[in-house]
Amino acid sequence: MKPVNIGIIGLGTVGCATVEILKANAADIADRVGRPVVVSHACVRDPSKPRSCDLSSVELLKDTADLVNHPDIDIVVELMGGTDLALDLGLQAVAAGKHLVTANKALIAEHGNQLFAAAQANGVTVAYEAAVAGGIPIIKAIREGLAGNRIHSVAGIINGTGNFILSEMRDKGRAFDDVLREAQELGYAEADPTFDVEGIDAAHKLTILASIAFGIPLNFPAVFTEGISTVTAEDVTNAEKLGYRIKHLGIAEQTESGVSLRVHPTLIPQTQLLANVHGVMNAVQVQSDAVGESLYYGAGAGGGPTGSAVVADILDIARALTATPEQRVPFLGFQPERLKNIPLLTIEAVESAYYLRMRAADQPGVMAEVTGILGQFGISIEAIEQTEPVQHDTQATIIMLTHRVIEQKMVEAIKQIEALQTIVGAVTMIRVEHFNTRQST
Amino acid sequence: MKPVNIGIIGLGTVGCATVEILKANAADIADRVGRPVVVSHACVRDPSKPRSCDLSSVELLKDTADLVNHPDIDIVVELMGGTDLALDLGLQAVAAGKHLVTANKALIAEHGNQLFAAAQANGVTVAYEAAVAGGIPIIKAIREGLAGNRIHSVAGIINGTGNFILSEMRDKGRAFDDVLREAQELGYAEADPTFDVEGIDAAHKLTILASIAFGIPLNFPAVFTEGISTVTAEDVTNAEKLGYRIKHLGIAEQTESGVSLRVHPTLIPQTQLLANVHGVMNAVQVQSDAVGESLYYGAGAGGGPTGSAVVADILDIARALTATPEQRVPFLGFQPERLKNIPLLTIEAVESAYYLRMRAADQPGVMAEVTGILGQFGISIEAIEQTEPVQHDTQATIIMLTHRVIEQKMVEAIKQIEALQTIVGAVTMIRVEHFNTRQST
Repeated sequence: MKPVNIGIIGLGTVGCATVEILKANAADIADRVGRPVVVSHACVRDPSKPRSCDLSSVELLKDTADLVNHPDIDIVVELMGGTDLALDLGLQAVAAGKHLVTANKALIAEHGNQLFAAAQANGVTVAYEAAVAGGIPIIKAIREGLAGNRIHSVAGIINGTGNFILSEMRDKGRAFDDVLREAQELGYAEADPTFDVEGIDAAHKLTILASIAFGIPLNFPAVFTEGISTVTAEDVTNAEKLGYRIKHLGIAEQTESGVSLRVHPTLIPQTQLLANVHGVMNAVQVQSDAVGESLYYGAGAGGGPTGSAVVADILDIARALTATPEQRVPFLGFQPERLKNIPLLTIEAVESAYYLRMRAADQPGVMAEVTGILGQFGISIEAIEQTEPVQHDTQATIIMLTHRVIEQKMVEAIKQIEALQTIVGAVTMIRVEHFNTRQST
Repeated sequence: MKPVNIGIIGLGTVGCATVEILKANAADIADRVGRPVVVSHACVRDPSKPRSCDLSSVELLKDTADLVNHPDIDIVVELMGGTDLALDLGLQAVAAGKHLVTANKALIAEHGNQLFAAAQANGVTVAYEAAVAGGIPIIKAIREGLAGNRIHSVAGIINGTGNFILSEMRDKGRAFDDVLREAQELGYAEADPTFDVEGIDAAHKLTILASIAFGIPLNFPAVFTEGISTVTAEDVTNAEKLGYRIKHLGIAEQTESGVSLRVHPTLIPQTQLLANVHGVMNAVQVQSDAVGESLYYGAGAGGGPTGSAVVADILDIARALTATPEQRVPFLGFQPERLKNIPLLTIEAVESAYYLRMRAADQPGVMAEVTGILGQFGISIEAIEQTEPVQHDTQATIIMLTHRVIEQKMVEAIKQIEALQTIVGAVTMIRVEHFNTRQST
């Protein structure tokens, strides 16, 4: 089957990440969709500017009008930002019968009603998963995953910059201005941080979340917005003492008297999962009638996460253009005939870190014997602790954490440890995982 | 447009919840899909048994064969459980050209390959969102939301009973057997708890998650399974001291040498979000190349959450049967002409709890004046604290938390408090939210 062709307007961080994801995972993507998905064309303001992505197979067009009207392009991806020109191009694209994918939250929050009406009239779609909370598929979760629910409220940490600042203020007792400066140095905050710290960015996203949660037209001007620049280190500390934590939340709530849309610093109980979302990470909590509480967590910005959402929208449309509607998504996500034959490991072949606990005679040299055996198997120890025997007890407990090793080695080492005369009974072994977050692309 | 007709086999907790959700939210659902979705038929083992749901508009059939072959039924929903008969009925349904929705994790994990092949040959779909992690739309998130990603690992708390037991052991230092007995009394655990505490239930779910994450055929026998019945209170305490927490995880990981599929007690760092998932709640953490870490949290069992997933699958199919493929999901989740005109509240009309901080002259009677004003506005105080002035300071800081009140009243009360001669400067006001989890249906 011929490829689905994508035309991208704007090759900044997100645009280049989109190109890279579609290229790096091209084989898997074709297996998921049932046909290749290819970036065939792109349009940039300055074609001479060096880009971070490989554009060797992409035809660069000078004029955006050529791209949105190009007969070979199935899906136009708008990643240029801004509202006026983006709206104009979006309207041109849907008028030309192209499906439109965008990461532009301002465009959707402020002009979505107009854009959607135009798309509806032209029989095309406008997809905007990337506009809210980056890599978290929250639009899909609400519009589809929770489609049977009446939603009571949506509350989200939907601006990573603000959450980074509040997390640092809390962890290190630092003042707002001080952390903001660091965030600017790290590239988390813009030179003019107003958009992030005063909640305008969050208000754009909240506008969208509220509309899909409650089925109301987009109404950005109705959002009440209060920033975090007035939150003091003293308030952060007081909140902690009271068992709360201050987060900059976007909240959309349906009550008997109406819907409230608001972005403001909020004290929430420390025990809530939302209070434990730290640094630049985002999370959206939904309260709905059938499910109760659910929460969606991930990186809210950056090329990889935002590009992932753009690609998810592209693949959604590509699947609609490819499969029969009822079999749009293959049973196991990949086309049945493209399932993989990957070796499945036995537990002995799995690498893990370990927690060990054993009872030992309270004699000198026990520890040396145990660590000696571990050393023979190349198992290095991260932490070790021996509790002194309590009164009338002649045995001590040894607890240790090891570094990662193939399980077979650990099992053999434990056999030898258990055979020691100084070790009493069986050694308890529990696996330890850190799930170190791998760098996103 | 004529309704999409549903035939349900099995009206236990999940079956009745599905009926209730489709009825309670019928108007919204029709607005989302573009046509009504109706439970037209059902089949139960014992028609004389009283049911918790209103079946007045449902035709009860005696024979399952009549249901799966009924010409009026578009989607067959299998909620009877078990594997042999469920597989037989599933195969009959797809052979009859019906789409199949099921919550049956054992059926999919053990016989999914066969069932999917039959559905593929018959041009129908088999949907199973409810089979994994109840109300969390995790199948959709992985198959669609993360479709552009290469997934490294999936790690989940996917058995609520086990997580409840481990949470209680940690919180209260209780022994496994003791908590298990309580879980059985509360109805969280079965009389024979093997399925839950030995990880078989989790292994079924992990089998499914691994296949959609990595694109491999379902292979339940390949899952290594270790239960939590051997986890001692001592190990739980030791883990906490070391900065870890013990969770019963299902882990599917892709490494250079192959894929590992395993369910076992696991120490994970307390700072990870997964370690902060308590009680019967479920969560699934995904590591993937473009997004990095993402996590999906919610109730993993119960009628409401599982019924929500069943309904989501039904609506997915109903949308495919209704709209043009590319416009399958309406822009804002609801049909454009069905968007609602709900009043949007100004911030003054929003009800919230509040944190207040003020500086007061260190004089007797200040506290009485402040609380008196709050009382006049009907604002009750949840907590109040006055810090003594430090040396050379003649002012004290008063901090308080209030109960919920309309913001307008709070603003007026603050105006009066600020006008007090004994209060210095402005009163700091930050909103407080508890997001009390509403009971699911």
